[in-house]
This record gives sequence, C-alpha cells and structure tokens, in this order.
Amino acid sequence: MTTELEDLAVRLREFAKVREWERFHTPKNLAMALAGEVGELVAEFQWLTAEESRSPGDEALARMRTELGDVTLYLVRLADVLGVDLVEAARAKLDDNDRRYDPDVYRGSARKAPPSPGTT
Amino acid sequence: MTTELEDLAVRLREFAKVREWERFHTPKNLAMALAGEVGELVAEFQWLTAEESRSPGDEALARMRTELGDVTLYLVRLADVLGVDLVEAARAKLDDNDRRYDPDVYRGSARKAPPSPGTT
Amino acid sequence: MTTELEDLAVRLREFAKVREWERFHTPKNLAMALAGEVGELVAEFQWLTAEESRSPGDEALARMRTELGDVTLYLVRLADVLGVDLVEAARAKLDDNDRRYDPDVYRGSARKAPPSPGTT
Amino acid sequence: MTTELEDLAVRLREFAKVREWERFHTPKNLAMALAGEVGELVAEFQWLTAEESRSPGDEALARMRTELGDVTLYLVRLADVLGVDLVEAARAKLDDNDRRYDPDVYRGSARKAPPSPGTT
Repeated sequence: MTTELEDLAVRLREFAKVREWERFHTPKNLAMALAGEVGELVAEFQWLTAEESRSPGDEALARMRTELGDVTLYLVRLADVLGVDLVEAARAKLDDNDRRYDPDVYRGSARKAPPSPGTT
Repeated sequence: MTTELEDLAVRLREFAKVREWERFHTPKNLAMALAGEVGELVAEFQWLTAEESRSPGDEALARMRTELGDVTLYLVRLADVLGVDLVEAARAKLDDNDRRYDPDVYRGSARKAPPSPGTT
Repeated sequence: MTTELEDLAVRLREFAKVREWERFHTPKNLAMALAGEVGELVAEFQWLTAEESRSPGDEALARMRTELGDVTLYLVRLADVLGVDLVEAARAKLDDNDRRYDPDVYRGSARKAPPSPGTT
Repeated sequence: MTTELEDLAVRLREFAKVREWERFHTPKNLAMALAGEVGELVAEFQWLTAEESRSPGDEALARMRTELGDVTLYLVRLADVLGVDLVEAARAKLDDNDRRYDPDVYRGSARKAPPSPGTT
C-alpha cells in the first residue's frame, strides 16, 4: 500500500528527474534547502504574540500553509534520497520521548530530559 | 481512513495532553522548536562533502534518522495545532512548482523562477 | 586600526590553519555551521514566554551567551572567507531599512515594507 | 571607546525607538528574526558546489552580503537587548575551542570534541 508520503516522494523523484536536477539534490543541499524554507516559516511568526500565533487570520495562515508545504516537500525529498522512512523515524523518537518524559516528573514543565543511554 | 500522519498527530496530542504541555505548544513555540531541530539536522551535514552526504555511513545515517524524526514530530504537531493539512499543502506547492519550473526552460539549471501571480 | 571583529577573524584564520581545517571551511559549510548554531540559540528560547525571554535567569542567560558566541564565531569566519565586511554590510542594510520604514507610516506596526527598487 | 558593534547597537536602539518597535523586540522574537535571516543566507548557498561557494560571482556575492548584513543587525540587536557582549562571548568560546581541539589530535579531522567539563 502506498502512503501519501510515498506518493509525494515518487512525484518529487519525477519532478527532479524531468528537470535533470538530481545532481543538485545531494542530501547536503537538500538539508540546506530545508533550513532555508524553515527560516521562511519562522519569519511568519517572528512578530506575533503567542495568542496571535494561535489565531493568525486568513492571510497569515495562507502564508504559513505555503511555507509548511515547502518544508514538507524538502523533508520528504531529503528522507527519500537518504533512504529514511520519516514516519518510522518519527515514531521511534516519540517512543523514546514517551520513555524519557515520565508524565509524573515532567507534568507542566518545559525542562529538558537527559538523553536515553547510548545517545546524545 | 486515518493516514500515518494523522496517527502521529493524534499520538502527539495525547503526548502533550498527559504532560499538560499544551500551553507550551503555541504555533510560535512549535515553529521555533522545528527550527531548532532543523539546525541539529543541518549540523550532521555541515562538514561532509556532497559525495559523503550521499553515503554517510551507518553511524552518521543513524544520527540523521534521529534528527529527521525530531523534525517530523514538530512539523506534524505544528500543522495539527494550526489546522493545516501537510500533505495537501505540499501537493499544492508541488503543483505550483510544476507550473513555474517549465522543464524546457529550467532543465539542468538551479536558478529561481518568478513567483506565481498573486504570491511572493 | 584593527577592530575587534578583525582580531577575531585573524584568530579564526590561525585557529583553522594550525588544525588544517581550511578545506572544511568553504563558505557553503560555514553557512551550514552558522545555521546549526542559530538552531541551538533558538532552542534556548523556544518554550519561554516573551517576558521570560526578557529576564531569562542566570543559567539560561549563560547558555544564551555561549550560543551567541558560537554564532558570532561562524558569522565572522564566513564573512572573512567570503571577503565581506560585516559592519559595512550591516550599516548598508540599516540605511536601507531607515529609508524603507518611514516612522510616520510604520510606527507601532510590524508589517513588512516593500523592498527597495532593484532588490528583492 | 566605542566599538563599531556598540555604534550599531546604539543605532538599532534609536531605529526601534523612533518606530515604537521595542515591544516587538523581545529576545524571543529577535532570535526568531535572526533564524529567519540565517535561513535566507543559507538559501544563497544551497545549490552551489563547495567550489562555487568560494567564488560566487558578483551578483550572488552581493546577495550574500545583503543577507550577512541582515543577520548581523539581528545578532547585534538581540545581544544588546539581552545585555550580552558578543565579542567577549565569541572570545570565550574560541578560548574554549582552543583547549578542546588539540591540534595534534584534531589536525585535518572534522570530528566533534567532547564538551568542556561543566558544559554540555
């Protein structure tokens, strides 16, 4: 069964191939492009208060949606070129965070937990 | 039908709720957290050559996988809190890029295309 | 007369030279390293409220100072390798912003001004 | 004696004051703005090879200079609002790196050194 992310990855391979862009799409370059797009996304929030960010208004939300789209495209493309399954990687980290952040200890707190043994 | 990203989003809502972290998860803060994790991802590539980034070796790839997992978690959480469908947003941008980057014009070239009318 | 930034740049050239790190210090790599450090800096603020960020407390401020130091080092090194004078570049942008952001028009407002003619 | 960075900081205080922008210039927001500008800087390098980044050509260099100017402005403003001396912070980190990266051990190598005791 093909997931939506796999469909996107396949479309992105074709998109790069037909334009002969594969040589630009090294993981190094794709990581930079992802950072560039996340910068544009962050810029949409920089002057908003926390409350304004919860209810940004239609125009601002449309711009955020555009930037979220760009970020997703580069994230999917980078993971595909590297051969990493994004959903599996995310689940593994969430399982790890579930263990590290015992709700009884971290309830209502933003402090950082020590890393799991064997990681940094 | 629930997609994998929706499953992740639901798990993340529960993860935040049981720890009473919702007040920290404003879109503004989540965008910053996303930027922080993308910074960690980029750092994994910063000294690699283009070729080394294509074949990073097992240890480096494991660290990249970890960071890709972190990035995915914050991206999914941010989109969910904002009410944005990441896959739809990505498809819309890809359709837009398909129009803007005519293969006959941009084949083999990394130059940037003008934005679509009505956007920046 | 040598400025403090020029002194830093000279120390960084020596630092890289004695370790034979010049081949890693391409502008591309230095830009990535800078992005990585800015990610670490942003992470120090991600869960803070606006007010907490104004008075972060000694430990948090010490961590922010460390990250600001790292960011400054890579910024100075990148500019030096590219041959760009950071202070002149900053002044030029501030002069440009002075023109673009007429106080009578932008007082109290966070909206973005159009770019100067001939720029994007 | 006033350094060039202090002059910039003073100009930036005046720039923000006359436009009544101080309420937007929380350290949290300024860190985000800095991240946004670093994203724009990184984007200038994302498709360049290492060698192209060493000799970017006049137009690309001019755009890099502009982005370096923007990054410097937000870095100086953020440090000023927090009360951090950028040059001292940078020197302290460089001294620390001098100790951690023994040239005999790290010559020609990009691997990361352990943090100094008492830091992370």
